[in-house]
Amino acid sequence: LKIGKLYGIGVGPGDPELLTFKAKRILEKVEVLLVPKSKMEKRSLALSIISGVVDKDWQILELLLPMIKDKEELQKHWQQAAKQVFDVLQQGKDAAFITLGDPTIYSTFTYLMKYVQNLEPEVQVEIVPGISAVNSISAWIKQPLAEGEESLVIIPAINEKDEIEKAIDQFDNIVLLKAGSQTNKVLEILEDKDLLDKGFYVSRCGFKDGFYTSNLKEIFNKKFDYLSTMIIKKGLGDGKK
Amino acid sequence: LKIGKLYGIGVGPGDPELLTFKAKRILEKVEVLLVPKSKMEKRSLALSIISGVVDKDWQILELLLPMIKDKEELQKHWQQAAKQVFDVLQQGKDAAFITLGDPTIYSTFTYLMKYVQNLEPEVQVEIVPGISAVNSISAWIKQPLAEGEESLVIIPAINEKDEIEKAIDQFDNIVLLKAGSQTNKVLEILEDKDLLDKGFYVSRCGFKDGFYTSNLKEIFNKKFDYLSTMIIKKGLGDGKK
Repeated sequence: LKIGKLYGIGVGPGDPELLTFKAKRILEKVEVLLVPKSKMEKRSLALSIISGVVDKDWQILELLLPMIKDKEELQKHWQQAAKQVFDVLQQGKDAAFITLGDPTIYSTFTYLMKYVQNLEPEVQVEIVPGISAVNSISAWIKQPLAEGEESLVIIPAINEKDEIEKAIDQFDNIVLLKAGSQTNKVLEILEDKDLLDKGFYVSRCGFKDGFYTSNLKEIFNKKFDYLSTMIIKKGLGDGKK
Repeated sequence: LKIGKLYGIGVGPGDPELLTFKAKRILEKVEVLLVPKSKMEKRSLALSIISGVVDKDWQILELLLPMIKDKEELQKHWQQAAKQVFDVLQQGKDAAFITLGDPTIYSTFTYLMKYVQNLEPEVQVEIVPGISAVNSISAWIKQPLAEGEESLVIIPAINEKDEIEKAIDQFDNIVLLKAGSQTNKVLEILEDKDLLDKGFYVSRCGFKDGFYTSNLKEIFNKKFDYLSTMIIKKGLGDGKK
């Protein structure tokens, strides 16, 4: 029996129309859908995105991948998930892991891929790129992420203050991911460097209650959703609205 | 007469299957296609990507945007292009500018948008994100661009050596764009920092003659295509093939 193929499929940032034709074709073809869940009871957002677009009665395999800090505990969950996946592939079935955004940018797919390859290095893997959240945010606020010879840094806002300062000091465009709980830390850096007029705060892009602002002063001390992003554009000119 | 809407549409990295459903729907709807050309005689790659997927007889407006360094001369070309586009919009027609990859990452669309908005600030603009070349490269070589709390820097390789060194010193994952003519400069930096085993060289991803290697030592002094990318992953483990 030929071992099945493992696909990592980016389903885009949320709008089902931002799925690619390739993602749809492969999702229609595979027998098994691998759906990551951080809590077993939570409905998968990636699954709801494709449900409206791809009409197929997959065998669904839920992988419990909790967000925990204990590395040993986490590793056990990954090994368990990889074993579940490998069992399916060994039955000769192709399986697709669906991920929000793109499978190579802050996705759990690349971890799964490595754990499965540790079990069996010969497993065939194919990654289908998807529109990442960063690109949907820049499209929404109508701002280039980078132009010409400019540099672009993408960094989770949870990083230490001095790491974020270095990024802001030395590069042209800085995207701070998961900024929700880190907002004040970043705003203080921007105030120190007189850059409060060079940025955007984007919350829940793609959702009905999403919003963005370029008036960073007004968001000091406000509480925002985890799904928030800050974009600093040091070259932002007077054309900014 | 209502002024037409200006769309910036990412058509993805080259494979027509990596177009999104939204891009296709809007391309089927608009009357005018805006096709950037660096030389008037060169066939547009973005146009050839959509030609096989979207069946529509557009009015095609070619915009001559040469790659020149003289800023004043370049500005004249942009103003001319913006005027051509605005003339079409004023006829009440919607127009779509098609761009390889994504319209907010190193695309000329964001320049065009600004020049058109300078002529008439009330022009409605919509950006449809596309799969960027960077994401198609990481999918091809099956490597994460960034995981967990890692940082990611994207920087054109034409930047000064010390800029590239800073990026490599301070961040986890570094993508060097348009690396073709800059290969040796980057390789010397990597050799100095003992990082020659932590990178990938990717040439003409998506083309028939495309290739990649993780053996960076073997590419010293070789000549490569402009469409080359280097990816440095400082955390690359022994799992690398």
